Amino acid sequence: MPQSPVLRAAYRARAAAADLAPLPRAAKDDVLLAIADALEVRTREIVEANAEDVAKAEEAGTSEAIIDRLTLTPERVRAIAADVRDVVRLPDPVGEVVRGSTLPNGLELRQVRVPLGVVGIIYEGRPNVTVDAAALCLKSGNAVLLRGSSSAYKSNVALVTVLRDAVGGAGLPADAVQLVPGESRESALELMRARGQVDVLIPRGGAGLIRTVVEQSTVPVIETGTGNCHVYVDEHADVDLAVDLLVNSKAQRPSVCNAAETVLVHQAVADAFLPRALRALKEAGVTVHGDEAWAKAGAAAGVEVVPVTMDDWDTEYLSYDIAAGVVPSLDYAVQHIRTWSSGHTEAIVTRDTAAARRFVAHVDSAAVMVNASTRFTDGAEFGFGAEIGISTQKLHARGPMGLPELTSTKYVVTGDGHLKGGPIP
Amino acid sequence: MPQSPVLRAAYRARAAAADLAPLPRAAKDDVLLAIADALEVRTREIVEANAEDVAKAEEAGTSEAIIDRLTLTPERVRAIAADVRDVVRLPDPVGEVVRGSTLPNGLELRQVRVPLGVVGIIYEGRPNVTVDAAALCLKSGNAVLLRGSSSAYKSNVALVTVLRDAVGGAGLPADAVQLVPGESRESALELMRARGQVDVLIPRGGAGLIRTVVEQSTVPVIETGTGNCHVYVDEHADVDLAVDLLVNSKAQRPSVCNAAETVLVHQAVADAFLPRALRALKEAGVTVHGDEAWAKAGAAAGVEVVPVTMDDWDTEYLSYDIAAGVVPSLDYAVQHIRTWSSGHTEAIVTRDTAAARRFVAHVDSAAVMVNASTRFTDGAEFGFGAEIGISTQKLHARGPMGLPELTSTKYVVTGDGHLKGGPIP
Repeated sequence: MPQSPVLRAAYRARAAAADLAPLPRAAKDDVLLAIADALEVRTREIVEANAEDVAKAEEAGTSEAIIDRLTLTPERVRAIAADVRDVVRLPDPVGEVVRGSTLPNGLELRQVRVPLGVVGIIYEGRPNVTVDAAALCLKSGNAVLLRGSSSAYKSNVALVTVLRDAVGGAGLPADAVQLVPGESRESALELMRARGQVDVLIPRGGAGLIRTVVEQSTVPVIETGTGNCHVYVDEHADVDLAVDLLVNSKAQRPSVCNAAETVLVHQAVADAFLPRALRALKEAGVTVHGDEAWAKAGAAAGVEVVPVTMDDWDTEYLSYDIAAGVVPSLDYAVQHIRTWSSGHTEAIVTRDTAAARRFVAHVDSAAVMVNASTRFTDGAEFGFGAEIGISTQKLHARGPMGLPELTSTKYVVTGDGHLKGGPIP
Repeated sequence: MPQSPVLRAAYRARAAAADLAPLPRAAKDDVLLAIADALEVRTREIVEANAEDVAKAEEAGTSEAIIDRLTLTPERVRAIAADVRDVVRLPDPVGEVVRGSTLPNGLELRQVRVPLGVVGIIYEGRPNVTVDAAALCLKSGNAVLLRGSSSAYKSNVALVTVLRDAVGGAGLPADAVQLVPGESRESALELMRARGQVDVLIPRGGAGLIRTVVEQSTVPVIETGTGNCHVYVDEHADVDLAVDLLVNSKAQRPSVCNAAETVLVHQAVADAFLPRALRALKEAGVTVHGDEAWAKAGAAAGVEVVPVTMDDWDTEYLSYDIAAGVVPSLDYAVQHIRTWSSGHTEAIVTRDTAAARRFVAHVDSAAVMVNASTRFTDGAEFGFGAEIGISTQKLHARGPMGLPELTSTKYVVTGDGHLKGGPIP
């Protein structure tokens, strides 16, 4: 057994993962139902523990938005339990045969989905992530190491206690769900260096957290979440539709990663589009950070336009702000997007099939929308049922990550005593 | 433009990758055919450059096996060109629709294969890897940064010159294929830290090289190659078949990663199996490093058995040696394998379907063989045509990696002006 508490937790998680991997769906669904029931039965102890975290955050003068994300009410605990029951209804990815064939020598080859093993989640002060992540990991046969924010420590301890009791009560190893011991930065670093013990780390939170994990981790990481998303209004766009789509992409819920942060407009359609877009954005409460063309249109329309800077092109506002430029061509828009995008979601508005094909082919992001709002990049919208995050990297998973993205595969090869270089048996 | 030569190369590779990504198959196949032709036409300059590397290696007293791997003859260059033509015949993974559906709101969702972008290969003194890796990367629409061994530097310069001339001659950016500038350790380290510029690093070589890349790299890495493979002879094994399968797994070509390194035998079949296995292994030139049961059987059969140590269980011999133990049960064998295996390939020999199912379910390796030699874990044997390596990690790719494993995916979503939360258009 290793000395450090974090490595000991990882070691126990590995042992639990070995027990979880071969479980059939029914056994995993039973555990999830037991968890949902236990959350409801033990709501009071969860809410009481959470109240201590909230009181501490209020004393520390934490902002209202962050306290809101931290707070658990009986209604919210019920909603979390309902989310767990939704995971029960999702198909089990484990055991799916991804490809298979009979080889020329008669060997039967099958590539089968298997759990990843031990999944580490590093996240910030949202206690609902504790349960969501555990439910998705258990359903996909993985053990999970949860490393939440110290601001939610008491809430997480209470939630993980309920989870572990339910897992243990169902006859499975409680160590399939563990809170990483210690609230210190060192314990997070230890988790990031536990290569060989932890199969993947998924950071969920702000850009700073994700950068730290990517730089420090020797465990493979899946980057999630940063969304500097673009809407490009093509010269062949329907202007009305483009205005609606821009406002929806930006303002329907600006605080999330799939909200638009930049709009680029083909110069051929600028005269028609800019005045109407400015009025509609103003009505939606959005401040435009625009280039000269936007500034001029703003002056003419009586709408204030803040001068755009290089920093604006690089910014994920997550607020009622948008960077705005006019471009001479679709290719110029693509080049701008390739330069500044975080690779999450970009949309084109056009009636021209050739323009749509060219945009889709040349933009290199997790999701490309043609005449649809950027806000649709989402596991639930895509029909995946639940998501553990939205990957903005290219390896293993890209875009919304559902249950299949929490699996690996294994080749199973069956023969009759087949020898390499030998006769076919 | 960045200051460092390595980062400048990565920057140019990114630009080239943007041009390669949307290319149709025909354009990529034409480049590969031009490369194959150029390799044959310019064989002389390649072999001459290689002769300088070989002379230097001979002066340095390099072992014959390593010099053999380094050496290029006109025949070997022709074989390399033939391998490139084989890649032409493989289907293009780019553009494959991996999944797709029409969402309830009418949005059309497609998940499409796209190139990874810039692939870095760090490898040792085999100049054929230079061309193999470049061909596979180009076919899958990726730019490639090649970082070979300094012992093959002149050969690699000559080969990459031929490759770049052929790529440029076909009207594509020559920077799609680049040798990483500099032979120093620092240049390799810079490549490993070029996260954001390089999409994935694939080390090909010995365990030391792979460990360094895994530990130093901030670029995502795919671990390849280490194979501490096991053969388990079950109590329900056909003894004749088990002996043949063990000898084939161990001795058919001991220097490769899918050769067996340990045999575990169920005690119920040990009396029947051990004497015959010992004689067959001796005949094949294999030294057995055995536990007490094997030692006793060796003494009785007049075959020398070296006492096995903990280190032996952990060793990828790549030679005519095998570690050997007798185990009380299938579960004990599985536990041994989970403890010591590198996660490459394990085989069970049994006539019992329940034992086969249990072994397959509980062994956590890239490939599990039932009554087949471990030697079959191979891209060519699996029908993938060519392989860039055999991944022993769980993220992104596991087992033999063909062209699809050199791709990512992108979601393309097409609508008629769909707004989140809005009416269906």
